[in-house]
Amino acid sequence: MARRPYRAAPKGGEFALIDRFTRALPQGGEGVVLGIGDDAAVLRAPAGEDLVATVDAVVEGVHFDARHAPADVGWKALAVNLSDLAAMGARPLWALVALGVPLGTPEARLAGVARGLAACARRHRIAVAGGNVSRAAELSLTVTVLGAVEPGRALTRSGAAAGDLVAVSGTFGEASLGLRPGAPPAFTRRQRRPAPRLALGRALAGIASAALDVSDGLVQDLGHLCAASGVGAIVDAVAVPVSGAYRRAVAGAPPEDALAPALTGGEDYELVVAIPPARLPEAEAAARATRTPLTVVGRLVRGRAVRVVGPDGRELPLPAGHDHLRAPPPSLTSRRGRLGSTRRRR
Amino acid sequence: MARRPYRAAPKGGEFALIDRFTRALPQGGEGVVLGIGDDAAVLRAPAGEDLVATVDAVVEGVHFDARHAPADVGWKALAVNLSDLAAMGARPLWALVALGVPLGTPEARLAGVARGLAACARRHRIAVAGGNVSRAAELSLTVTVLGAVEPGRALTRSGAAAGDLVAVSGTFGEASLGLRPGAPPAFTRRQRRPAPRLALGRALAGIASAALDVSDGLVQDLGHLCAASGVGAIVDAVAVPVSGAYRRAVAGAPPEDALAPALTGGEDYELVVAIPPARLPEAEAAARATRTPLTVVGRLVRGRAVRVVGPDGRELPLPAGHDHLRAPPPSLTSRRGRLGSTRRRR
Repeated sequence: MARRPYRAAPKGGEFALIDRFTRALPQGGEGVVLGIGDDAAVLRAPAGEDLVATVDAVVEGVHFDARHAPADVGWKALAVNLSDLAAMGARPLWALVALGVPLGTPEARLAGVARGLAACARRHRIAVAGGNVSRAAELSLTVTVLGAVEPGRALTRSGAAAGDLVAVSGTFGEASLGLRPGAPPAFTRRQRRPAPRLALGRALAGIASAALDVSDGLVQDLGHLCAASGVGAIVDAVAVPVSGAYRRAVAGAPPEDALAPALTGGEDYELVVAIPPARLPEAEAAARATRTPLTVVGRLVRGRAVRVVGPDGRELPLPAGHDHLRAPPPSLTSRRGRLGSTRRRR
Repeated sequence: MARRPYRAAPKGGEFALIDRFTRALPQGGEGVVLGIGDDAAVLRAPAGEDLVATVDAVVEGVHFDARHAPADVGWKALAVNLSDLAAMGARPLWALVALGVPLGTPEARLAGVARGLAACARRHRIAVAGGNVSRAAELSLTVTVLGAVEPGRALTRSGAAAGDLVAVSGTFGEASLGLRPGAPPAFTRRQRRPAPRLALGRALAGIASAALDVSDGLVQDLGHLCAASGVGAIVDAVAVPVSGAYRRAVAGAPPEDALAPALTGGEDYELVVAIPPARLPEAEAAARATRTPLTVVGRLVRGRAVRVVGPDGRELPLPAGHDHLRAPPPSLTSRRGRLGSTRRRR
């Protein structure tokens, strides 16, 4: 403090910037007793429900760079968290946002981030109830999302049993193809504006035996579900749903290359769920009710391995895991490292 | 994915590192239905209480550097958040921790961070219920803390009125002096291992009319309380409590220099509370019950200004505000920028 005794408080600068960022966000909503602007938010959880909480970060140079529209960065930072709530069968309520901001960041860039964040929050009707801003070497957003679920109905990774069917939402591989130079806008959009499967997740709570969302690739993430549930899996590669545009994009590639983005590409933010065979009709009804495609792609078996059977009926070798800290090729993906994730891998 | 088709999953590396970090943390506790290891945590909030939520980050090169013991960094990252809950009169329950980790970070450094984080969590009996790890250019910890408070009893910044007394916990200025080269270990410890005033904050809920914790300096933070409550303040600089060690450290300095660390130094993480005069006996009893010093340092008045009266009875000029993004002198402080903070400054 002796550094700057008794000078006037700063005008503009940080405070004005934080102000503009904050004003762009939807701050009110269900249960927000006291939102942004105090030491902490006061929130009223829905009576009789459990809370669901998760945190995730997107970091410049790791998950995005200057080629990404700031609004896409803001959208995705929230959407990937909402996808985690979808995988729990929870409904989202509130977000807290911690911004890391390098010196000299153009205000327009922050305004874009706020706009994308706000758009995603409004789409899913959640309030940004708190936040923080700090200087940092690179732009980052660390988002905590809180939601609610009926007690006992949360979809965990560990509830599945051998014999359960493996089903997935939507289609796979476009997000991964969206990283390639010259990718069609639809693929790029899939990569940059993921749509969390919240409606399906909630509809499957109480029906599916286990679930997670796909950030690191279908096969790797299914492996996490299997490890947590103490089972193995057999996946029929040809059954993994892909779009017509995906088929056209990989037409002519060798079969394994044509399958790789869908099987291991990551960032699709679709759900992978385990469904006891007797409950498949209910699961299919839930999918219809929420207008979300749901496709059975395999089944859980005794053991530990995730095996993928290719178009020729032979087993494909397992794909690589993603190392969140080493990740040798600079990557723009939002693949996630979660504390304790290896506990599920044993 | 096409980058690394069908390779073996990584051994060691990130997963082992995350595993060791996670194992060091206390993960179970009140209301933790499902902790670390799934897509999200499931938490059971205490029935009939409101939630209190806040997020804060500590970033290498901004809030700490290589001179700081990793365990101190871990401790402080959590403690500054708990201080926010103290300022709300809440009791802490759970934390979620997002780590940013540069490539090549020595494992011992992360282990130290985990150790300090765990020590602070255990001290305050909270569970780390979730987390995330991401690559980043510099080491950072972004901590979200959740707590509980009885409905209607949260201590906000906005409840004070002209005529209320201004009181503070503990002593001021040592944390700031702890940044100076050659500072005594007690000052350095105060700077690096802040002790959130949780017991006092809870005891003052329902008694104090407003509260906040001091991160940016007593005068500046009191200004936030005044702006939120629509009042001004007069502070008696000589009444601001300082330790004997503080007095010795500033002995011989010109009066204004001797006062500056206590008035504007920041990072004391003491509470500043407004107390209606009729409730002062209750507040003092609460302080005694929690064995926390509480000292009246001024009063709230009509108007907007925070005026500090010096030892000679004259008003001191107002100190500088801290610009969280520009902060011209590289600082190792943990001063905080909160979303929407300027909304309280108008």
